[in-house]
Amino acid sequence: MSHSVVYPGSFDPVTYGHVDLIKRAAQIYDEVVVAVAINTHKKTLFDSEERVDLLKRSIEGIANVRIEVFSGLIIAYARKNSIKVLIRGLRMISDFEYELQMALTNRRLDETIETVFLMPSERYSFLSSTLIKEAAALDADLSSFVPDFVEKRLKELLKV
Amino acid sequence: MSHSVVYPGSFDPVTYGHVDLIKRAAQIYDEVVVAVAINTHKKTLFDSEERVDLLKRSIEGIANVRIEVFSGLIIAYARKNSIKVLIRGLRMISDFEYELQMALTNRRLDETIETVFLMPSERYSFLSSTLIKEAAALDADLSSFVPDFVEKRLKELLKV
Amino acid sequence: MSHSVVYPGSFDPVTYGHVDLIKRAAQIYDEVVVAVAINTHKKTLFDSEERVDLLKRSIEGIANVRIEVFSGLIIAYARKNSIKVLIRGLRMISDFEYELQMALTNRRLDETIETVFLMPSERYSFLSSTLIKEAAALDADLSSFVPDFVEKRLKELLKV
Amino acid sequence: MSHSVVYPGSFDPVTYGHVDLIKRAAQIYDEVVVAVAINTHKKTLFDSEERVDLLKRSIEGIANVRIEVFSGLIIAYARKNSIKVLIRGLRMISDFEYELQMALTNRRLDETIETVFLMPSERYSFLSSTLIKEAAALDADLSSFVPDFVEKRLKELLKV
Amino acid sequence: MSHSVVYPGSFDPVTYGHVDLIKRAAQIYDEVVVAVAINTHKKTLFDSEERVDLLKRSIEGIANVRIEVFSGLIIAYARKNSIKVLIRGLRMISDFEYELQMALTNRRLDETIETVFLMPSERYSFLSSTLIKEAAALDADLSSFVPDFVEKRLKELLKV
Amino acid sequence: MSHSVVYPGSFDPVTYGHVDLIKRAAQIYDEVVVAVAINTHKKTLFDSEERVDLLKRSIEGIANVRIEVFSGLIIAYARKNSIKVLIRGLRMISDFEYELQMALTNRRLDETIETVFLMPSERYSFLSSTLIKEAAALDADLSSFVPDFVEKRLKELLKV
Repeated sequence: MSHSVVYPGSFDPVTYGHVDLIKRAAQIYDEVVVAVAINTHKKTLFDSEERVDLLKRSIEGIANVRIEVFSGLIIAYARKNSIKVLIRGLRMISDFEYELQMALTNRRLDETIETVFLMPSERYSFLSSTLIKEAAALDADLSSFVPDFVEKRLKELLKV
Repeated sequence: MSHSVVYPGSFDPVTYGHVDLIKRAAQIYDEVVVAVAINTHKKTLFDSEERVDLLKRSIEGIANVRIEVFSGLIIAYARKNSIKVLIRGLRMISDFEYELQMALTNRRLDETIETVFLMPSERYSFLSSTLIKEAAALDADLSSFVPDFVEKRLKELLKV
Repeated sequence: MSHSVVYPGSFDPVTYGHVDLIKRAAQIYDEVVVAVAINTHKKTLFDSEERVDLLKRSIEGIANVRIEVFSGLIIAYARKNSIKVLIRGLRMISDFEYELQMALTNRRLDETIETVFLMPSERYSFLSSTLIKEAAALDADLSSFVPDFVEKRLKELLKV
Repeated sequence: MSHSVVYPGSFDPVTYGHVDLIKRAAQIYDEVVVAVAINTHKKTLFDSEERVDLLKRSIEGIANVRIEVFSGLIIAYARKNSIKVLIRGLRMISDFEYELQMALTNRRLDETIETVFLMPSERYSFLSSTLIKEAAALDADLSSFVPDFVEKRLKELLKV
Repeated sequence: MSHSVVYPGSFDPVTYGHVDLIKRAAQIYDEVVVAVAINTHKKTLFDSEERVDLLKRSIEGIANVRIEVFSGLIIAYARKNSIKVLIRGLRMISDFEYELQMALTNRRLDETIETVFLMPSERYSFLSSTLIKEAAALDADLSSFVPDFVEKRLKELLKV
Repeated sequence: MSHSVVYPGSFDPVTYGHVDLIKRAAQIYDEVVVAVAINTHKKTLFDSEERVDLLKRSIEGIANVRIEVFSGLIIAYARKNSIKVLIRGLRMISDFEYELQMALTNRRLDETIETVFLMPSERYSFLSSTLIKEAAALDADLSSFVPDFVEKRLKELLKV
């Protein structure tokens, strides 16, 4: 059996929580495809090229990880690339609700693709990209949340 | 005692989850009034006339159900129509929180009207109109979520 | 349609939270049957006769409420008595989980019987018979939790 | 040890839930600084001057409470004013998640400042400024949610 | 990379929920080891031999599943058998809490072993062995919860 | 104002989670009384003398902490010692529910005593004495959960 998995998200921007999850997945699967969502309806702070670029620099040195972009349904992307497993992180209880809802919807769309959930380190279990953007706008020190090149770009974009 | 109940919502658009709940209510109450909210502040995808029309087609054949529209407080609507019971569906935990908060607020506004909660089938316990609109925008197959005439109109409106 | 409902429980002992729920149910249904579980496996502090007696004294003056006992499945009891609706109270989030689980199990056992949930007053939303027994054992003042004749019997039984 | 605490929030507008929490804090701490957030990014219904004014009128007569405004990080405000404790209210489960996330983020930003949580009365445990604004827009009676001068201003601003 | 996973539990007795999860795991991993806990401290209804036997009969025909027993820490079992992944099912919110706690404890005991979570079908998301034993004791029809040979043995053991 | 607080619990046995919370409380209050429950009804693994002794050794060097024992209601203990604040830790969502219920019950018993909640480090947010006893019985390495002298006594008592 080939063991590729896909880890979809908007990564706007990547945080140490995402990196932690990618590392864990890379240790238990042959290949991890990180799929960055290009969603023309949803406004992001970083454009997709920069989101991909920041991700690439964050995971440097992990051999079995690839960064890709996708638009449309992640289920369609997985099917087209013959990937049977979606990876998602479980941080907090509200996460759990939403993630479950997504996973059950995705299962209804394609019964052959499974969602599996991994736990980030408790050190990152409370991180969210939204909260980090708020903290960046207030010029907080983000060194324990994101890599320094992400912090620099965040504060440039938010004109702190 | 007369046993009319009112089931308020925005139904933007109706899903199989709503239909399941209406059927369950219709089996245990004499009359179910489905009250479609006209809220000039809140933007909906479908206008109120079409939301009513899609609902009507979805519940065809159930004798003791009526579709109405209302604006303002549902409590005021219930009082004016001498209805003592509001029906709400409980899908997931986050629902529960919000629904409880609404129900306690409504009770404070009128102590004589009770909110009672019904459970949809677990088959529909994860459905949400929001998620369905997102899936429709991505041209997903919605046949297990909504009737076909709803799917058709959703994709027309979202220009998929 | 006849509108009898059954409100099952162990009522070991009855609290003001139960009484509040019974009153609310009695206002929106024609008849409320409070069904006290006789479960030979489950140890209770009060025997079933006293649980019934304390309930009867607690709801004195409410015309459309009857106290009964039952053993076995509440679903079987409801079916035998042609009751289509089970009433349950929703207090807290943990409740919700357990209640949902019970209700879905009961629905699987008999699709024609619905569970509907009512909300107790927020004044009683945190009461539990278990906590009250613990407080009674420590000789706490229980006057805002249970009727005085229940408090007296609790403390006698627990030899405070 | 000096026991000043800060209770940050947007108070848009103040509710009886906030007042209840302030009173409880004032009974167990030497000084309570209520810090009204001025956030140029976040749109509020009331401007900061009126939010402060409504708060002042709501807590009249409590000696050890002061109303201040702040912009930027509450952690920075606390540090500058040598306050070691942030006060937050816990209303409901969804609150809990978000509050925990905020508190852990704040702790990461400054390890020497602790967040402590107080419980409002269950009478106010379901109140939210958002829900109250919705109810005001529908011309509901708000007398059990906010002081009358807040209700009056709410309805003026919302042109009910 | 070899992709064996272990699915630990007490399986007292096996339910359709367990079977659903095992089938899902078997589709995305090379080998699934179902590990039945022999815990001399914990009282079970079925002895370990019968729990293994009922499991074997329930999963007949799935090639890449093996049933084993283990005592002591599942982490120790996994390490000894060079398995890097524990599988757990997520049914409901209370589950989630406990499962997260277990998984974080296990991670602290061995950083190299990951817990991944799978979702059972929503059709089985509310099933629990405890609830089924209670229903069996009351002679309920269990045909949608467990295989018939499990139902038969349950009722024999409980002398219904 | 005098700022003594009481932190009640069974501490059977003390964990690094408890120690973390005591340290945090000691930094923001003048005096922290750790009150070990002697409850003749509740069976503990360690007797009260040893629970006190292990606590004392765990908090050595923190000047403003005292270990005491209490029986009966913690509210009665607080009142007799003129303490106005109970401290509790919030670990997880299920905690939250139970803690809220306890706190509201305690408030009903004495309106003048407040419960305030502190957050342990996320490093200890999943620890429970129950889980640790289970892990000890299976001879797990507990060095990141409890001090070594606690681990030693745990394994002696459990005859590992």
